[in-house]
Amino acid sequence: MSRVVKLALIPGDGIGPEVVAEAESALDAATAESDIRFDKTTFSLGAARYLETGDTLTDDDLAAITGHDAILLGAVGGVPGDPRLKDANIERGLLLRLRFELDHYVNLRPSKLYPGASGPLADPGEIDFVVVREGTEGPYVGNGGSVRRGTPHEVANETSVNTAFGVERVVRYAFALAERRSKRLTLVHKTNVLVHSGGLWKRIVDAVASEHPDVAVDYLHVDAATIFLVANPGRFDVIVTDNLFGDILTDLAGAVTGGIGLAASGNINPDGTFPSMFEPVHGSAPDIAGQQKADPTAAILSVALLLDHLGLRDEAARVTSAVEADVAARGSEPRTTAQIGDAIRARLQA
Amino acid sequence: MSRVVKLALIPGDGIGPEVVAEAESALDAATAESDIRFDKTTFSLGAARYLETGDTLTDDDLAAITGHDAILLGAVGGVPGDPRLKDANIERGLLLRLRFELDHYVNLRPSKLYPGASGPLADPGEIDFVVVREGTEGPYVGNGGSVRRGTPHEVANETSVNTAFGVERVVRYAFALAERRSKRLTLVHKTNVLVHSGGLWKRIVDAVASEHPDVAVDYLHVDAATIFLVANPGRFDVIVTDNLFGDILTDLAGAVTGGIGLAASGNINPDGTFPSMFEPVHGSAPDIAGQQKADPTAAILSVALLLDHLGLRDEAARVTSAVEADVAARGSEPRTTAQIGDAIRARLQA
Ligand SMILES: CC(C)[C@H](C(=O)O)[C@@H](O)C(=O)O
Ligand SMILES: CC(C)[C@H](C(=O)O)[C@@H](O)C(=O)O
Repeated sequence: MSRVVKLALIPGDGIGPEVVAEAESALDAATAESDIRFDKTTFSLGAARYLETGDTLTDDDLAAITGHDAILLGAVGGVPGDPRLKDANIERGLLLRLRFELDHYVNLRPSKLYPGASGPLADPGEIDFVVVREGTEGPYVGNGGSVRRGTPHEVANETSVNTAFGVERVVRYAFALAERRSKRLTLVHKTNVLVHSGGLWKRIVDAVASEHPDVAVDYLHVDAATIFLVANPGRFDVIVTDNLFGDILTDLAGAVTGGIGLAASGNINPDGTFPSMFEPVHGSAPDIAGQQKADPTAAILSVALLLDHLGLRDEAARVTSAVEADVAARGSEPRTTAQIGDAIRARLQA
Repeated sequence: MSRVVKLALIPGDGIGPEVVAEAESALDAATAESDIRFDKTTFSLGAARYLETGDTLTDDDLAAITGHDAILLGAVGGVPGDPRLKDANIERGLLLRLRFELDHYVNLRPSKLYPGASGPLADPGEIDFVVVREGTEGPYVGNGGSVRRGTPHEVANETSVNTAFGVERVVRYAFALAERRSKRLTLVHKTNVLVHSGGLWKRIVDAVASEHPDVAVDYLHVDAATIFLVANPGRFDVIVTDNLFGDILTDLAGAVTGGIGLAASGNINPDGTFPSMFEPVHGSAPDIAGQQKADPTAAILSVALLLDHLGLRDEAARVTSAVEADVAARGSEPRTTAQIGDAIRARLQA
């Protein structure tokens, strides 16, 4: 009896289709011997689609995607400054809309320095932490506006919205994750300045901490956290933080663990009400699109997160091991996107 | 005929008094031969004062400070978690209140990797840039609040307020600075998510850029900016950004240029309506207070910024050179706060 997983593929723009192609083969190779079958639908979404049709994400697109079990996304976004995209906001209208509509309240971003990966730090030590970034609240809600736009009297406001409901559920997820890992959790915020939102986060972390006496909890202001990420990244295990701080910390974390070409992420709806979505942290990099220069590793590691989310732990572990072995064997010789994908797939088939 | 400068000293908490003592001697040494005289008043402000009197910054304090020509501040803030400070917010009530009341709309934070300074990067290259951080707007305005506080239905909002007036003046300052430096300016924001505030910043930078055709302007999202700060910090000359992003970037910049013990800053009111305030970027570090373990270099470099602001360019340059020479000669042997201060002062007197 085989299990069928309905997978929505959103290759997207720029290097998205190239890296998704390799991620798809890795997925197939990792599950070839299992009783799982992926029923894939490809959605043409992103800047290219917008330029063709004027649509960013229609209600029909959304309904169709929602009918799937999981989503694999490459990257979306057109060439920066493209005048035809002036009125579009692919990031807000597509990527963020999916995260919000599908209630992806956990944005899971693991950071691990694989042996062989070379980052910018002289003495990185061991790096292995996970950022649990809130995905549906904070400064990302889009509750902003401006008055007297374009005049010398313009006032532009953005409101960060934070709820006990929204903070508690992601904090609980982070504590549960810390329990399965090294039992250390760091809250990152800016409580001394953002006293209302920061106060809410702090009180909820303190409250949930009392139910997890075996988890060591500490707190860092976001500015101090960036210092530790370069000076002593080994101190972190699970970081829980808001949408904006999580965005910033995970790009930096990607950089210190060998580059954004290795950073994978999951946009997770832990309740299972909506499909979760897996994507590399990197963007669409239109400048190198179609040239086979992109590293598909982050997309392939996103497949590992997807498999793990589906409960296919062995298959997930095989993908991670194959990547780990490939990274360890990387020399300075540049490889094409397909060559890296092939090498990882060969390890999965071995 | 000698010029008298009325200087307000706010040593503050923790290591503040120790580093300010060294900064004061450096100031005296640097100006000993000049026709300038500093008329100093010390203000006892910070967590210690709050614990004694319950006051954070009274209107009388503020009026007295405002009567000065410039301010030198050490660091403020008590021991984190001190229950007696539960209802105090020294950062908002004192430091931020001073920045807002004295209209310090330019928070100037230079980052330079001095020869001999060792940071966490394996291959830092040359680093020499300045962050022009907006100081009176953005998410720092304190326009937040919460409803149903402490209940499962709590909603905590924070509003970032951005005005054309406020953005334009700091952007103009940054362009003028870029003209005097390497003529490269990078706007850092998150325009794809914070479309209203980001849009305002982008439009104003574009408009002012047209008056400065010789300045090369680019834009980075804040997350990408953190990657460049560790992967290629040499690309930056002048960064202009909002209050929160500037806070984050400058701590990271401090870390990559040899640690926050070297990072100086000026809170500047370029109009001269109010006194400008100079302070190390580091905090009060209560854990090492009174132990002569703090590095006073950041405070001494803040004196250089102060002298420069007062138009005493030669004296400012002498302080910077003395620090540079000291940093270059630093071995691995630890020195006390006073030993570092003495060594720098000796170079100033030589
Ligand atoms: C593209 C952008 C909206 C997105 C974000 O800010 O969340 C990206 O930076 C990310 O981290 O996934
Ligand atoms: C203490 C705090 C309010 C302050 C800030 O966030 O501005 C500090 O981090 C700084 O950078 O000067």
